Amino acid sequence: MLHPDRLFPSDERTRAIARDIHQRTADLPLVSPHGHVDPRLISEDEPFPDPARLFVVPDHYLTRMLYSQGATPDQLGVRSVKGEPSEVDGRTIWRRFAEHYHLFRGTPSKLWLDYTFGEVFGIYKTLSADTADEFYDHLSARLAEPAYRPRALFDRFNIEVLATTESPVDSLDAHAELEALPADGGRRWGGKGGKVVTTFRPDNLVEIDWPGWADRVKQLGEITGLDTSTYEGYLEALRQRRQDFIAAGATCSDHGHATAEAFPAEDAAEIFQRALDGDELVDPGRFSAHMLYEFARMSCEDGLVMQLHPGSARNYDTWLHSGWGRDVGGDIPTRTDYVESLHRLLNDFGHDPRFRIVVYTLDDTVFTRELAPLAGVYPAMFVGAPWWFLDSPEGMRRFREGVHETAGFYNTAGFVDDTRAFCSIPARHDVARRVDAAFLARLVAEHRMTEEDAAEVAVDLAYNLPRKIYRMEQR
Amino acid sequence: MLHPDRLFPSDERTRAIARDIHQRTADLPLVSPHGHVDPRLISEDEPFPDPARLFVVPDHYLTRMLYSQGATPDQLGVRSVKGEPSEVDGRTIWRRFAEHYHLFRGTPSKLWLDYTFGEVFGIYKTLSADTADEFYDHLSARLAEPAYRPRALFDRFNIEVLATTESPVDSLDAHAELEALPADGGRRWGGKGGKVVTTFRPDNLVEIDWPGWADRVKQLGEITGLDTSTYEGYLEALRQRRQDFIAAGATCSDHGHATAEAFPAEDAAEIFQRALDGDELVDPGRFSAHMLYEFARMSCEDGLVMQLHPGSARNYDTWLHSGWGRDVGGDIPTRTDYVESLHRLLNDFGHDPRFRIVVYTLDDTVFTRELAPLAGVYPAMFVGAPWWFLDSPEGMRRFREGVHETAGFYNTAGFVDDTRAFCSIPARHDVARRVDAAFLARLVAEHRMTEEDAAEVAVDLAYNLPRKIYRMEQR
Amino acid sequence: MLHPDRLFPSDERTRAIARDIHQRTADLPLVSPHGHVDPRLISEDEPFPDPARLFVVPDHYLTRMLYSQGATPDQLGVRSVKGEPSEVDGRTIWRRFAEHYHLFRGTPSKLWLDYTFGEVFGIYKTLSADTADEFYDHLSARLAEPAYRPRALFDRFNIEVLATTESPVDSLDAHAELEALPADGGRRWGGKGGKVVTTFRPDNLVEIDWPGWADRVKQLGEITGLDTSTYEGYLEALRQRRQDFIAAGATCSDHGHATAEAFPAEDAAEIFQRALDGDELVDPGRFSAHMLYEFARMSCEDGLVMQLHPGSARNYDTWLHSGWGRDVGGDIPTRTDYVESLHRLLNDFGHDPRFRIVVYTLDDTVFTRELAPLAGVYPAMFVGAPWWFLDSPEGMRRFREGVHETAGFYNTAGFVDDTRAFCSIPARHDVARRVDAAFLARLVAEHRMTEEDAAEVAVDLAYNLPRKIYRMEQR
Repeated sequence: MLHPDRLFPSDERTRAIARDIHQRTADLPLVSPHGHVDPRLISEDEPFPDPARLFVVPDHYLTRMLYSQGATPDQLGVRSVKGEPSEVDGRTIWRRFAEHYHLFRGTPSKLWLDYTFGEVFGIYKTLSADTADEFYDHLSARLAEPAYRPRALFDRFNIEVLATTESPVDSLDAHAELEALPADGGRRWGGKGGKVVTTFRPDNLVEIDWPGWADRVKQLGEITGLDTSTYEGYLEALRQRRQDFIAAGATCSDHGHATAEAFPAEDAAEIFQRALDGDELVDPGRFSAHMLYEFARMSCEDGLVMQLHPGSARNYDTWLHSGWGRDVGGDIPTRTDYVESLHRLLNDFGHDPRFRIVVYTLDDTVFTRELAPLAGVYPAMFVGAPWWFLDSPEGMRRFREGVHETAGFYNTAGFVDDTRAFCSIPARHDVARRVDAAFLARLVAEHRMTEEDAAEVAVDLAYNLPRKIYRMEQR
Repeated sequence: MLHPDRLFPSDERTRAIARDIHQRTADLPLVSPHGHVDPRLISEDEPFPDPARLFVVPDHYLTRMLYSQGATPDQLGVRSVKGEPSEVDGRTIWRRFAEHYHLFRGTPSKLWLDYTFGEVFGIYKTLSADTADEFYDHLSARLAEPAYRPRALFDRFNIEVLATTESPVDSLDAHAELEALPADGGRRWGGKGGKVVTTFRPDNLVEIDWPGWADRVKQLGEITGLDTSTYEGYLEALRQRRQDFIAAGATCSDHGHATAEAFPAEDAAEIFQRALDGDELVDPGRFSAHMLYEFARMSCEDGLVMQLHPGSARNYDTWLHSGWGRDVGGDIPTRTDYVESLHRLLNDFGHDPRFRIVVYTLDDTVFTRELAPLAGVYPAMFVGAPWWFLDSPEGMRRFREGVHETAGFYNTAGFVDDTRAFCSIPARHDVARRVDAAFLARLVAEHRMTEEDAAEVAVDLAYNLPRKIYRMEQR
Repeated sequence: MLHPDRLFPSDERTRAIARDIHQRTADLPLVSPHGHVDPRLISEDEPFPDPARLFVVPDHYLTRMLYSQGATPDQLGVRSVKGEPSEVDGRTIWRRFAEHYHLFRGTPSKLWLDYTFGEVFGIYKTLSADTADEFYDHLSARLAEPAYRPRALFDRFNIEVLATTESPVDSLDAHAELEALPADGGRRWGGKGGKVVTTFRPDNLVEIDWPGWADRVKQLGEITGLDTSTYEGYLEALRQRRQDFIAAGATCSDHGHATAEAFPAEDAAEIFQRALDGDELVDPGRFSAHMLYEFARMSCEDGLVMQLHPGSARNYDTWLHSGWGRDVGGDIPTRTDYVESLHRLLNDFGHDPRFRIVVYTLDDTVFTRELAPLAGVYPAMFVGAPWWFLDSPEGMRRFREGVHETAGFYNTAGFVDDTRAFCSIPARHDVARRVDAAFLARLVAEHRMTEEDAAEVAVDLAYNLPRKIYRMEQR
């Protein structure tokens, strides 16, 4: 069994407080206003594939660690973009993973997996070369049962709402299918106010050096019936798609830029035109910074909550990228500036009561110096939960220690799980709720906060703030 | 009542040690060699205004947090520079503040306020919408009593010395009035060795793009009887004012530059002249970096301890700045370099036994990497207490953890409160003494320091070092 | 006596676990694959000089702290490069040091010294002005005994292997002498697989602005019999010396660059030629970045493990440097980038199974953001132990907290002591083993790792990983 006091401080006084605080949040519904689960998973409700394809192949946290010790993507069943062969036998992949499970000691991946194996699939042993087959058989058997279909798990996980992420050129068909499903206990699966909603993620329409950009701009024209060969038409088409997304339940947009730069570029129309014409001398960063600013302006109009995820050097590992494509583990964080980058955006929109921006980071040196002071004065800005490499017990602890003294708790946006691994959702919320309980318990034990206040803050961080800040309660 | 173990670690062994260490510093006099209290407060000794104007309106820690959740400066009684109306009723402002007091959970502001309400004003309840009026009435009644006049509180607070901060064009009249007051228990209020002394803060004579700069340079000429229309005269006038400040008790200067850059610029005289002539093409940063270097040279001559406060993007929030002026909460820290910026200054003056510089930061990433190694080799340099957004339990803990291993304790300058909120002075020293006791107790509990050494260090940090490093004992 | 629980957490539950984990590593042999002990010390096996010359004069951790409080190198017996007189009396230097021993409270230097005084020399008192002479006499008496000769201590310290660092123009005579010594308990002192091995450190052949560079290039030609007046000959000579070093037992190279930049420069041959011709306009940084890339290519061929030590502003303190030379305490860390700097090197060699690079840092802000993610995907890269100013309890704790969640434990290279102070070697390993035990104990106490796993990790960090990653087991 998982230890009931896991992630709580060892000191008995603080641990007892942490237990009490955690009890207040442990059974709250899961609010997941930001993530990357494929909506087809829920709309189609097919059984999950084998354990290797469910847990290992698509999880870049796991594959990158295995690469770091010499495994290759082929051996792990990751599909080559060049058509090279890769391992197809799930059990072989699973055994390879199990043999290397010791690499994950102390990592959040192990916390999430052990929770999922145990609490979701009922297997509480230690994964290793010796137990690999036992795990594989056990998990395979469960996955074949109706209770382990996605929609059944969705309800068992007590998920109140799950937001997925789609491009403006996505048809939103999966969300339409979800909306067409019969309501379940009075709650609809899709559409406005539904259990699964979309998020407007325009990155591949905004990064002009992303292969296929011009084609997607054309596609955007087709999907909207507007002429996107002009900059004005392009903007108008994006505006229209935002309305379509809102109709499909979206309350947020999401922006994954290389930097946090946001400023109006007077030559944006010219860059757009030249980029469409195939001119490679235009500045992609200047255009995306301009578009971030434009999207902030649109948010003021239509109320979509803007989420900003900057600072990842995407596809840094060119061997991985050229052989196996995007999002396979070869991204690396970079130093990220917010103070200068967001100056124009915050000054133009940061006091606008209609505007809201949630800012995330991979650079943990900015929590105290930049994000907390900015969120601590601009009403429009909130600090997002520790992201990706920082979505971990130590990352969360440093986040709270670094942010709360200047921004308090109510200028943070509460926990979001940010996962594409559906089965790991409860594990991620479990870790976050425990780490926040542990942190708050320390403040109580050191007489910096009353236990009553701490319990209220814990409930807000786990449930009320994500609902409120991401405008989920207004759906 | 405030808990006697507040801010101490929860673990019983460490807590007991922290208690013992703290007992050695709890009753020491308060040494406040750096702050921003208005000297007229003490010289005039008028009753404080109402609770809102005492606690809320002038405290940018509080107003910025309230702005961040949608309150406007007008609603909080902050005076518009454009002559717009703002709330005048103290009770209304107070209620608005009290309603939002939960925003401050876990912040140093709440620690300071709760201490001040309790230990200074004798009200130990929890501020909230429900108790707002009770607090307002209680505080108002106390403020009307003679025992709550500034000079009475000064003595009750057990302040040994308080340094204020004045511009070179300040007449120093308030300090003259303090000097003229009858001595009190053998100690004079003002003048050399007095209880209240000034600090030479030349920023508004050095930042050539600060509105009114040329007028102030002229005024500097009038006040000194020197011709400040030439660069040489300007320098000489500053030198003379330093002597005047020393005569009024000053032992320090203070410099609030955008960066830590300090280097001699050969074209300084030319920049000065062109700036006086209204040339907007001159480089303000180059001139202020030059003047920082010049002031270091002057410190070698006259012994004023140089304090450097870099790294704040002042008036970042242009809406606040244009509507309500400076110092209302819209400043944001920025990444700050010291190693390259101070290279010339440290190499030219850093081994000069007459020179002393105390360096502060808002960028907590430099404690370990830059400030500790620099202070750990140059005899002239000391690391200043955690400043502003870092003047907090977590900030102080990270400061000690990050600095002491390379610089030890004796290359830090001890605690300074840096406050303009007179009534919060005891609270700030209380927090610092407790956090240092907690930190030292951990070293003792982990057998990294003897308890005897730790107690000696605690007394040094709280009392001996600020007296010595800021040359207060030589007054 | 030293407290048996030193450096363990105070909380009783965690402390008990730390004790158990530490017991597993306490008596393991010391593996020291990276350090700066002079090999002549072992080959000549002369008695150590007096206590001041053993402990104080050559230790830049100690001298820099004493400078920071006003002592001068002359007073501490540091030899002037200008021929100025300096203190020659060991006892006088020792007393000066002892008087200031309180400066080291809480520093790793004090931990190392107190351990060495006690565990190596059997004196468990507190050093101070009062006990200075007693220490001096006691230590002097011990140093005169045969049991305190270097080779006797080497065996008593239980050192399995010690790597020294030599320039390519070093004759390696000392290592030849070590190889010629009679084997001892079946183990040879020098040569391949010996107890003392060399490391290839080419900095002074690569930094073209290091005085004497051209002479050393010439000397490299003489030592190899190759024509190093051409770039090709220079490269070939370096390749040949690497083979000589490998024959003398080396398994690693070491590179102490100002930055982590590594990229092939097409004009490297031209820069080399112009630099040899005395052209001062060439770019030293461009050439050293090129050579770092070249050495990575050579490592792919000959298997020497590359160690990268960037980010020190060497000789920052020009007063110290001009008067007393290099490595006397005047170096300062600087902000260091790895993500962009190493991009080309990692993409070209980072998946090559023959290549290995261990990366260190003085910039603790990159642990989480840069080093852990890079080592967590590239099989060739490992994160080196906390270095220099970070080789301390707090530095090690932050290192583990910042690295393990993304890179795990097995992408770090285990502990290396990096010392030139031979007698401090056991102290340094003692601190590292205790701090790692303390860290792992917290993970166990918080139910984030089993105690069994933690003990295995502790043994790996202390012993197996340094042997494996630095290829010591393949000697």
